[in-house]
Amino acid sequence: MMNTRASTHTGLALMRAGLMICLLWLSNATAQATEPLGSWAQHAAKARVLAFVKAVTTEGSPEFVSPSERIAVFDNDGTLWAEQPAYFQLLFAMDRVRELSAKHPEWKTLEPFASVLRGDFKSVARSGEKALLQLVMATHAGMTTETFERTVQHWITTARHPTSGRPYTDMVYQPMLELIAHLKSNGFKVFIVSGGGVEFMRPWVERVYGIPPEQVIGSSIRTKFEMRDGKPVLVRLPEVAFIDDKAGKPVGIHQHIGRRPLLAGGNSDGDLQMLQWTVAGPGPRLALLVHHTDSEREWAYDRRSAVGKLDQALDEAGTRGWTVVNMKRDWNRVFDFNLR
Amino acid sequence: MMNTRASTHTGLALMRAGLMICLLWLSNATAQATEPLGSWAQHAAKARVLAFVKAVTTEGSPEFVSPSERIAVFDNDGTLWAEQPAYFQLLFAMDRVRELSAKHPEWKTLEPFASVLRGDFKSVARSGEKALLQLVMATHAGMTTETFERTVQHWITTARHPTSGRPYTDMVYQPMLELIAHLKSNGFKVFIVSGGGVEFMRPWVERVYGIPPEQVIGSSIRTKFEMRDGKPVLVRLPEVAFIDDKAGKPVGIHQHIGRRPLLAGGNSDGDLQMLQWTVAGPGPRLALLVHHTDSEREWAYDRRSAVGKLDQALDEAGTRGWTVVNMKRDWNRVFDFNLR
Repeated sequence: MMNTRASTHTGLALMRAGLMICLLWLSNATAQATEPLGSWAQHAAKARVLAFVKAVTTEGSPEFVSPSERIAVFDNDGTLWAEQPAYFQLLFAMDRVRELSAKHPEWKTLEPFASVLRGDFKSVARSGEKALLQLVMATHAGMTTETFERTVQHWITTARHPTSGRPYTDMVYQPMLELIAHLKSNGFKVFIVSGGGVEFMRPWVERVYGIPPEQVIGSSIRTKFEMRDGKPVLVRLPEVAFIDDKAGKPVGIHQHIGRRPLLAGGNSDGDLQMLQWTVAGPGPRLALLVHHTDSEREWAYDRRSAVGKLDQALDEAGTRGWTVVNMKRDWNRVFDFNLR
Repeated sequence: MMNTRASTHTGLALMRAGLMICLLWLSNATAQATEPLGSWAQHAAKARVLAFVKAVTTEGSPEFVSPSERIAVFDNDGTLWAEQPAYFQLLFAMDRVRELSAKHPEWKTLEPFASVLRGDFKSVARSGEKALLQLVMATHAGMTTETFERTVQHWITTARHPTSGRPYTDMVYQPMLELIAHLKSNGFKVFIVSGGGVEFMRPWVERVYGIPPEQVIGSSIRTKFEMRDGKPVLVRLPEVAFIDDKAGKPVGIHQHIGRRPLLAGGNSDGDLQMLQWTVAGPGPRLALLVHHTDSEREWAYDRRSAVGKLDQALDEAGTRGWTVVNMKRDWNRVFDFNLR
């Protein structure tokens, strides 16, 4: 009897010792991991982001937020990946027009398709919202969701960015990947909230950003459930369902997530309402604005740009003390290659 | 030098021993946890669910599915909680009509409000879709999302079910809570896909089911972003945005999750297309249908019921070999109290 008890005691002691060693080993392994935000320069932006994450994750801190409430949202175009010389989804649509043109002889004389086929990019850019919508519907609708997914998957792995000659998924900002990783390792659930099409992003964002498809919010067209040869399919209709831009972003966030984010990052006036909505919540909130200031490593544009116009949101960031990331000053690295 | 090396060696050996003990301790703790699906009787339904979960989570199994693809979806009314004598959200709307009636003297003579105020439940139930929509819009729209959330929160904690006299959140099925827990502990992400209003569910599902608000898909009305006294709000408009029922369910799943579920559970014809869509995917899939067969512990209804009609889906379950849960036979316990 004594023997059994003694061995139980020894067993328990060993177990406890093992557990302690295990915990020490784990915490040590964590401490040795790469410094967070390694590509960010030692300036205010980095310090504010790190301090914010620390405050909301430190138990006992007055600003502590439980893991389930740690929601971060990021715009995609111009915030997580580049958006010059045009939104990449528009370049995708133009590539699709070229591929589909054999089946559409009428496009040779029909605008905006004719301009795309002539390679007259300036006319396409000037053609206005209605014409752009025509391009999108002709290339994004009329097929099943599975077919569209395969098309995007093929394009994203084979198409090349016109300036860099690299896959579009190379055009992601390394400092933002580090920020996503840092947030995730601190218990945040990270969502994309983009004006771009949700089904244009979902096929590749998990591989590239580590963000699963169910954490992507975007613009969408209507889909319809149908039985085809006894097999259920979802067919993409040429009809806008939701525009996830400007005042649509808080609506999309509320509809999809149902909680207010703690942290929101954007880069243009299209993100203004999302940032306003985020910081209007109680307790600690962080609004982050990526300012494209680096004409050498990336592009420099803001108030007068046709793509990613940043005007009102930049003023509001100044007035309200939001965290503005000056790409040129705050990022030691932009892409994992040199653009120029 | 030797000493340092020796102590490093001892340290490493201790560490490894610690890690092993730690792992053994953890696996033992897991094995000692309650048996999964404890309230399910030893019948085919339980066996099939357990076998399915085991197959898709056993590494090396030909049916193994990576954790990120383990998506399960469940209808809410009649699948996770009861739906008799009427959908609980309709009972909520009727309670709201009574509360708001002081401000609406015209309701005394205006249908369907007059029937609600007279307590003439049968007339309300017979009043048709348009009248029910009127009830919903009068009680669910015209306020900010925050005000509506507070109203639901208050109702769900104070209102009582007409038959049981208990809070509505007591009317959840214990075996389904166990199924959700079993799926979650096996790496599944569990979503609710309900015909009910998404904002009627989100305030309480995390507490009751352990399902976070961002994993709830439902019907919705339009919301609009507005600035009120410099503060951004979302206002609920009396306009349907999306009906997450029947053919709308696969659309809602695709729109929100962007992947096809591995497992879907429902209880009525409103869930048919969701089940069809789920099992049409490649690899292992499980379709589960809760059949209300227990007039003593719950309610018995199917093909001719006005609420939760189960007719076509029951036929299809038979033809296609879906897992039908016979409440009376397959569940040893329904609620955590006795209804009658």
